[in-house]
Amino acid sequence: MAKVAVRKTVERQTGVALWRQIADRIRLAISNGDYDATGMVPPETALAEEFGVNRHTVRSALSALADEGLVRAVQGRGTLIERKERVTYPISRRTRFSQGLGRQVKEIGTRLFAHAQVPASGEIAAALGIAPGAGVIELRTVSSGDGRPLSAAVSYFPADRFPRMAEEYARLGSITKAFAAHGLGDYVRASTEIVARHADAEELALLALSPGAIVLEAHAVNADLEGRPVEFSRTRFAADRMKLRIET
Amino acid sequence: MAKVAVRKTVERQTGVALWRQIADRIRLAISNGDYDATGMVPPETALAEEFGVNRHTVRSALSALADEGLVRAVQGRGTLIERKERVTYPISRRTRFSQGLGRQVKEIGTRLFAHAQVPASGEIAAALGIAPGAGVIELRTVSSGDGRPLSAAVSYFPADRFPRMAEEYARLGSITKAFAAHGLGDYVRASTEIVARHADAEELALLALSPGAIVLEAHAVNADLEGRPVEFSRTRFAADRMKLRIET
Repeated sequence: MAKVAVRKTVERQTGVALWRQIADRIRLAISNGDYDATGMVPPETALAEEFGVNRHTVRSALSALADEGLVRAVQGRGTLIERKERVTYPISRRTRFSQGLGRQVKEIGTRLFAHAQVPASGEIAAALGIAPGAGVIELRTVSSGDGRPLSAAVSYFPADRFPRMAEEYARLGSITKAFAAHGLGDYVRASTEIVARHADAEELALLALSPGAIVLEAHAVNADLEGRPVEFSRTRFAADRMKLRIET
Repeated sequence: MAKVAVRKTVERQTGVALWRQIADRIRLAISNGDYDATGMVPPETALAEEFGVNRHTVRSALSALADEGLVRAVQGRGTLIERKERVTYPISRRTRFSQGLGRQVKEIGTRLFAHAQVPASGEIAAALGIAPGAGVIELRTVSSGDGRPLSAAVSYFPADRFPRMAEEYARLGSITKAFAAHGLGDYVRASTEIVARHADAEELALLALSPGAIVLEAHAVNADLEGRPVEFSRTRFAADRMKLRIET
């Protein structure tokens, strides 16, 4: 069976500029390890020929990838690949954010940038098994690995059971510890749903992504050991920086 | 905490045409249920005002969404939403493709469009626990729900253990049944990794997607009950048609 050469195709009149299509193809080739032998992106002239475009278009594509921190132009040498590996985030019955990233990143940073007590919407109430309109604590966070934004999350907790969630999280820097401060010693993942879509403007800003970028969005419910929901969260992962590993 | 109005933003000079950005925003709004009250997309004039573009641009966006089967223009009434729900695909220790889709679609169609015996690449050999270069049966399939392509898969099976995989699959239409024909009565999901990325040209064609569309790609290993790998697969799900549900 012949492998079809598909990587090189760019299409005109698609609503996606040629330089962006080429940036996407190069990003994919880097992620697939196609340039591992040299650790460098092929020269601009070679890419221009490969994709059938001029060098200006290739340069725009490489410039966008440099802005994302994926490649770096080195005077007189060419374009170095800065990183190719996605950080793996495990999803299991015992998912814990910081532990999950483990030794893949040196420094995990989580920033709580907004919190509030709000009435539960229908969706949140259903996920948490509470009455619509009941109070929930809402936390908005962005997590980074070695300074690079990896995920942005909105989490909801029943306010009657976890009234000090925002304060404890701000103080302790961990949802697991903030639960413990309310007397909840253990919890498990009850359900996770995953979709992928284009990032919206807020996500582009929070995750430092460029337009057209993709997020993996996980809707998750955590429950105590009696099965009562304790948290509903929507986490948006930067898709070109993260991979999810499912442990069934 | 004020909700930031982000949905309306479109950006110029991003490499993604305005009509495509607007198509993406409308797709997201449909998926979020923002138009559920009417079951219709707002009128072109309202959308043009909302996004700060002219009606021609809005019309291009709606035309692209109509090509995807997401909306349908009805003379004298406006633009009806044809479907909003993604099909849910469960991933668990006992993942089975057809059973998983269950009653969400009336008719599941799977087409085997290519097969071959090939030497295992390093990645495939590692996943299957066999020597690099050992023979594997490769199957390429596309699966549809009610005529709409949902996923495209490439699956590899150790050729010494499952020599008739292609023939049995072609005859029986199911990997579970083709395994049974080789004497393997049961198998479980050993590992699953998930990434999201832009579809490449082959995937656009196989899944009938428009350029810029997203695929969820799952790399999965199935094993027999003694833990020996029996299948390694790469499945690309059309991200705007599918949602993954993780059962941990």
